Amino acid sequence: MKAWHFHGTGKPFERVDIDEPKASAGKVVIDVQAAGLCHSDVGILEDEGWMGLMKEMPVVPGHETSGTVSEVGEGVTDWKVGDKVAVWPMIGPFGYGVNGGWEAKAEVDPDQLVAMPEGISFEQAAAATDAGMTSAGAVFGKGRVKAGMKVGIIGFGGLGQIGARLAHLEGAEVYVAEIKEEVWDQAKAGGAVKVAKSISEFKDDELDVIIDFAGFGTTTNEAVQTVKFQGRVVLVGMGKLEANIDTNAMILGQVELVGSNGGSKDDIASVMKWIASGDLEPTLTLIDFEEIADGVDRLKRGEVTGRLVAKVAE
Amino acid sequence: MKAWHFHGTGKPFERVDIDEPKASAGKVVIDVQAAGLCHSDVGILEDEGWMGLMKEMPVVPGHETSGTVSEVGEGVTDWKVGDKVAVWPMIGPFGYGVNGGWEAKAEVDPDQLVAMPEGISFEQAAAATDAGMTSAGAVFGKGRVKAGMKVGIIGFGGLGQIGARLAHLEGAEVYVAEIKEEVWDQAKAGGAVKVAKSISEFKDDELDVIIDFAGFGTTTNEAVQTVKFQGRVVLVGMGKLEANIDTNAMILGQVELVGSNGGSKDDIASVMKWIASGDLEPTLTLIDFEEIADGVDRLKRGEVTGRLVAKVAE
Repeated sequence: MKAWHFHGTGKPFERVDIDEPKASAGKVVIDVQAAGLCHSDVGILEDEGWMGLMKEMPVVPGHETSGTVSEVGEGVTDWKVGDKVAVWPMIGPFGYGVNGGWEAKAEVDPDQLVAMPEGISFEQAAAATDAGMTSAGAVFGKGRVKAGMKVGIIGFGGLGQIGARLAHLEGAEVYVAEIKEEVWDQAKAGGAVKVAKSISEFKDDELDVIIDFAGFGTTTNEAVQTVKFQGRVVLVGMGKLEANIDTNAMILGQVELVGSNGGSKDDIASVMKWIASGDLEPTLTLIDFEEIADGVDRLKRGEVTGRLVAKVAE
Repeated sequence: MKAWHFHGTGKPFERVDIDEPKASAGKVVIDVQAAGLCHSDVGILEDEGWMGLMKEMPVVPGHETSGTVSEVGEGVTDWKVGDKVAVWPMIGPFGYGVNGGWEAKAEVDPDQLVAMPEGISFEQAAAATDAGMTSAGAVFGKGRVKAGMKVGIIGFGGLGQIGARLAHLEGAEVYVAEIKEEVWDQAKAGGAVKVAKSISEFKDDELDVIIDFAGFGTTTNEAVQTVKFQGRVVLVGMGKLEANIDTNAMILGQVELVGSNGGSKDDIASVMKWIASGDLEPTLTLIDFEEIADGVDRLKRGEVTGRLVAKVAE
């Protein structure tokens, strides 16, 4: 079968023919239907640091995957051939420590499967597993956002858009900080009560939680200075690798600053539920599996709108 | 009666004669028996920022106070004349927004009184209300330290010593980071299982919680890089007003960084309990109430060992 291989930092992805996986005991094989491309796939090509997640080379990348169960191993009772599933990537991790979704068939652990609800496409389900899960993990997991809370969202890019929308759908009052004024109307259409260039402009709004999807250091510090007394700041974005934080504001304000990455299977299920209902519509750009290496180049050049997902031709 | 007055930043404390307070309805008057001196009393003389806590000038400073109830106002039923009490300073705040303990008699809110247990002196009780409460608030409040946890303590000064001891008494395994090697033996005698110059040396010990009583920026960042996955760092010390934080470590480690100041009445009660049992012995230096202005000068010059407490002559 066809697959993409990653050989290590600085080496190009390679399109190869490898043996099909057979479901070993306790495992499941899925026919991959869609698999997303992520900025971290640019990362593994360029930054040695990612090698810490890898075990054996070569490995099949791809950590945003959906598909159809095509074989169940001995002892697996929760899943049957034909089930439509999204893959929770935190085990393995999928696409790093073990082969991921950039291949025709993937062997997975049944514990990492999430059933797709009616009304969601495979490419939407794939997008739900990383961008969706990471946003939901920040908003509901680390951010503990509940209906009625005032929630600040910094950065209205891919993750921030989903995060803002999820918080709004949950019943929170959403305040968006985004420097690009051209997306302000979209933020308001998605339910934001106020939009501004900097989160600092919401100082008087007493925000309960601020989620920094940008992570440019200054944005995180502004969040710490803006959130209400004993409020919570969730840091997701990796715009810069360090932040100079006003510790006086942290101590006197008893602020909690929490790093977030990834999320749970529940986060994926929650994102898929909102997509299936039509309330959450992640922007997708679709390509063919043959085009994945090209797609990563497009990501690197910043030429992609929304999430880039490779899809098996119907 | 005699009292000390503070007139504003840059002006010296003044020893004055003022009218005795009478207990108004719902209030209590205590005969002050002991009152602590704190680095923040140096702060109010030098740093304009503290004026934000003040309401009317002049005000009687002193936020670490113990005494004997000498009058109860109408409607107060929980306290009676003769009760020995420590004063929770977070209401007012005591010694900033309202008159504090550097006077012979102080009017207080009954909600801010904590009963002194048998076996504790007034000067120990006074020290329990600020240094003790702040340490306990960081360890048990924000740090959520429980028996069996591995707890890092950065800075073995006044607050850090109490914090390390409280964590040990609670049944935690305590790791102390302190640059001054001359106090290492004292740290070990107090129960620390390991002592080193930097918290980074405990990277392999998988600390659950690290409490930074130093707050020199670098110490906080080292704590973030050292604490275990999903661990908690509590920031109490204000050695510097900012910290450059490795956000990569925060995000990938899902670290929680929490600012802490003050504490609860329960924190004061818990500290007094350990002092009364003899398990916690805060180092005190005693002076007379007449010597308070001098005492603040000694603090400023760094000449004081342990907590400086003014005590009414017996």
